[in-house]
Amino acid sequence: MAVTLSKHSYGKSHVCLSYISRKEDRHDFIQLSAEISLEGKFDDAYTSDDNSKVVPTDTMKNTVYAIARMHGVDSIEDFAKNLAVHFCQTYDQVESATVSVSEQLWTRIDCDGQPHGHAFTGGGSEQNTCCVSASADSITMHSGLKGLKVLKTTESGFEGYSKDQLTTLAETKDRIFATTITAEWDCGNVSEDWTAIRILVRSKLLEIFAHRYSPSVQRTLHEMAEAVLDSCPAISEITLNMPNQHHIPADIAKLGLQNHNDIFVPTPEPFGVIEATIRRDG
Amino acid sequence: MAVTLSKHSYGKSHVCLSYISRKEDRHDFIQLSAEISLEGKFDDAYTSDDNSKVVPTDTMKNTVYAIARMHGVDSIEDFAKNLAVHFCQTYDQVESATVSVSEQLWTRIDCDGQPHGHAFTGGGSEQNTCCVSASADSITMHSGLKGLKVLKTTESGFEGYSKDQLTTLAETKDRIFATTITAEWDCGNVSEDWTAIRILVRSKLLEIFAHRYSPSVQRTLHEMAEAVLDSCPAISEITLNMPNQHHIPADIAKLGLQNHNDIFVPTPEPFGVIEATIRRDG
Amino acid sequence: MAVTLSKHSYGKSHVCLSYISRKEDRHDFIQLSAEISLEGKFDDAYTSDDNSKVVPTDTMKNTVYAIARMHGVDSIEDFAKNLAVHFCQTYDQVESATVSVSEQLWTRIDCDGQPHGHAFTGGGSEQNTCCVSASADSITMHSGLKGLKVLKTTESGFEGYSKDQLTTLAETKDRIFATTITAEWDCGNVSEDWTAIRILVRSKLLEIFAHRYSPSVQRTLHEMAEAVLDSCPAISEITLNMPNQHHIPADIAKLGLQNHNDIFVPTPEPFGVIEATIRRDG
Amino acid sequence: MAVTLSKHSYGKSHVCLSYISRKEDRHDFIQLSAEISLEGKFDDAYTSDDNSKVVPTDTMKNTVYAIARMHGVDSIEDFAKNLAVHFCQTYDQVESATVSVSEQLWTRIDCDGQPHGHAFTGGGSEQNTCCVSASADSITMHSGLKGLKVLKTTESGFEGYSKDQLTTLAETKDRIFATTITAEWDCGNVSEDWTAIRILVRSKLLEIFAHRYSPSVQRTLHEMAEAVLDSCPAISEITLNMPNQHHIPADIAKLGLQNHNDIFVPTPEPFGVIEATIRRDG
Repeated sequence: MAVTLSKHSYGKSHVCLSYISRKEDRHDFIQLSAEISLEGKFDDAYTSDDNSKVVPTDTMKNTVYAIARMHGVDSIEDFAKNLAVHFCQTYDQVESATVSVSEQLWTRIDCDGQPHGHAFTGGGSEQNTCCVSASADSITMHSGLKGLKVLKTTESGFEGYSKDQLTTLAETKDRIFATTITAEWDCGNVSEDWTAIRILVRSKLLEIFAHRYSPSVQRTLHEMAEAVLDSCPAISEITLNMPNQHHIPADIAKLGLQNHNDIFVPTPEPFGVIEATIRRDG
Repeated sequence: MAVTLSKHSYGKSHVCLSYISRKEDRHDFIQLSAEISLEGKFDDAYTSDDNSKVVPTDTMKNTVYAIARMHGVDSIEDFAKNLAVHFCQTYDQVESATVSVSEQLWTRIDCDGQPHGHAFTGGGSEQNTCCVSASADSITMHSGLKGLKVLKTTESGFEGYSKDQLTTLAETKDRIFATTITAEWDCGNVSEDWTAIRILVRSKLLEIFAHRYSPSVQRTLHEMAEAVLDSCPAISEITLNMPNQHHIPADIAKLGLQNHNDIFVPTPEPFGVIEATIRRDG
Repeated sequence: MAVTLSKHSYGKSHVCLSYISRKEDRHDFIQLSAEISLEGKFDDAYTSDDNSKVVPTDTMKNTVYAIARMHGVDSIEDFAKNLAVHFCQTYDQVESATVSVSEQLWTRIDCDGQPHGHAFTGGGSEQNTCCVSASADSITMHSGLKGLKVLKTTESGFEGYSKDQLTTLAETKDRIFATTITAEWDCGNVSEDWTAIRILVRSKLLEIFAHRYSPSVQRTLHEMAEAVLDSCPAISEITLNMPNQHHIPADIAKLGLQNHNDIFVPTPEPFGVIEATIRRDG
Repeated sequence: MAVTLSKHSYGKSHVCLSYISRKEDRHDFIQLSAEISLEGKFDDAYTSDDNSKVVPTDTMKNTVYAIARMHGVDSIEDFAKNLAVHFCQTYDQVESATVSVSEQLWTRIDCDGQPHGHAFTGGGSEQNTCCVSASADSITMHSGLKGLKVLKTTESGFEGYSKDQLTTLAETKDRIFATTITAEWDCGNVSEDWTAIRILVRSKLLEIFAHRYSPSVQRTLHEMAEAVLDSCPAISEITLNMPNQHHIPADIAKLGLQNHNDIFVPTPEPFGVIEATIRRDG
């Protein structure tokens, strides 16, 4: 039987790195997880016993630490770019290398109003992310964030939606709106100040979420995206994923008690899923 | 500023259903989780406060249970197809509906060699999956499985690979090969016996994994895919994802002891990632 | 200020080991995770900078692999005992050593009715467990299992319970009963056939769960414990923990549909928790 | 065969509540998960089919929302106390009720330096906890926190420890110290300002962690506990659990590169476990 290997990639996931940048007056600390994926002329390893073109994933792992030594880790974008370019330039058989990095965030401990020089708290669900794809003649770069959990206790409603015989949802002008934001935007391929852009994106996302009345997750998502595009000329497109993590009014009427829209059951499942890509025109 | 809503979808995830099929002599039991995603004319909800086209995700949740009542749950493929078609046929604004279902597996308890009529054990990582996309004029269907964890203690090696100054991996003719198989194949859109096909696919995957010497994960993956295509004429293409979950020989030489290739450290991270799509020619 | 160090222990958790026992005609394979906890004369490390009594937890990790080399891994109970005894006998400052082991289960792949010699499937939630505490003059040993997920679709009810103004639960003679069994029993400290006992315990737990009508989780738990004590003279006491993992009838009446006690919503939370210890009299 | 039901308890876990306290100028928001466990005269349900004494765990769930209505949720300690007392006072068969509450933390979004009135970020691993046990004539209360993840990049070492032939760990004066703090302290049973105490405890834990050189996890744990007892007269005893979450220097010497103690591999397992209870004397 004749078959075709129509698509294939391989790589290493969850290569974890902690990096200390020892400044004179303080230490900076970055903890990241990298995923490397290569595409190219690796067919022989699939269709025969010939591994001669295969760069072991163990070597990819070593490369993460070697690149950290050789180039440092100034930002996850720079680091991912250095890695992706290395794989493309070093191995003829590599046609494209994609490196995704997610960064666990650590915040300086504040003691008596002073940020500490080398002690941090962590553990948040929010992560900074980036994804860089490099080939012989191009580099595409995306920055992002994920796990940014937000909630507002009011100024959110849902009314005027499509109804039929399977609709039981009650319209409301005042509900809890909780979501976990995942965002990804293009960030050019020259040396932008990725970190400054991320800070600006994040602040715009939070500002709109907090300040605008939300008639639907969709509308708020779109307004958040617009605000980002409006304030960051470097970004031409942003994708937002915002699940609707429901907090349902507890049914205490059946207990002879009244719910003043203040007692809720947060539910892990099911949840709504809303995702859209918005791009700047022209 | 002018922006374009270039891509968008929304839906409901983790709608969980347990379904008892009460046969005369026994109960069949199926537990599944459905994810529904709609694309269509929902722009107004993003660009204005107009929700009139939005089918609430709460209604999608209700629909899962209503479809279970109206059509039963014969297979996850049939169930997903019924759901996807319902959304396309019921709502003009829906251009395509995608329904993904994963099924937790339950096995009849065996008492004194007799399969019990209504008692089961569960808890395995393996799940049956399917994904159905329906539009006004077409349906595409894929079946799959995920979480199928397999391991062989020998008959696996890795030699003759590309080496450079960042290579430290030692070649071996005898290593542990552990992976967790995710597979997805097209399964026609007529009423195939999806379950019979899945059982055949699964047995071929396991057979090749167990019986062939593995010179690389890539090679074994390809052989497994070939065997599936060879034995299942209904399948034209299969995608396999097989991470390389490393068990590393424990370094006990530093303790003055000898490792006879029998004492290993199983490692959660990093892990290799190998994925490929193989299709039948012609 | 004067303070007292009233209780303290330290150790290493998640020391993971994969062990191949190479028999002539087949390989046996065991994958386990060990946790070691020491109590003893370690006060100085807490109350001063003196670490001289501290056995590094890194050494404990090394010891796991060394003991695997020196004594093999016949059963998790033997292995845990060898480890616990090692720490007590080797270090004067150790007053007691507790070693808990959990084993991930691997099942031989069956090909054409033949169990394969070295290929396995895994991924189940069920684990075998044991806990051994050793001091200079005593050893106590417990065997157990956890993660044994079971479900019955009928022959379970709940009626005649205490009612008051906060009760909204409806009585039922026919509900789904789903739980995940954790069991722990004493298993002597001499060389019992731990594995044979575990197999017998497991089969008794499943047999009673499957065959007896359950008027409450409590009643079934007690009957399961009684059956174990009745059939295993070596066991004098067993503790069972059986959460009540609710599958709630889907409320489709509000959709104008009828639930024939066959369409349920499995819920991750909240869940009931039922735990009891039953011991043989006299 | 005669058996004895030597110990038993039952209850409900993961009863989740979101509570909005609507103040004039802002909303306060609390999200918690409660676990209720009852002990008492429930033997009949185990040893016979008599459920007449059993308070359904479903009623316990309802009670969580009813108590939120009747008494509000000022602090998790008050809430847990109200719940525990309710069960003891309402049901004769209850001999003791234990209520454990963990609170997910939400932080007000800061917009242009102003804390927002009803929008929050969440997602941190840190939780506030408490545990209240009530019987007819006594109440014991503990407050705590868990999931407080901290890391320092220097000012931590480990030297002078016990060595033998299984020791391979190198001594160091400069290592990363990372841990996730779990703390529990007694907090009286009268109406203390639990929240003020928790804030003080937390600040003392962080202050000592950040500012003192750590010769061992044990020493630092003890100093942290001492500082808490020293600054909080209301606390007589504190238990701290501080796993040693290792970041291991990446072995890049094998790549011909030098590690300046700045490139590390963070490891999920194995990890050290250090736990101690320290109490005030006299």
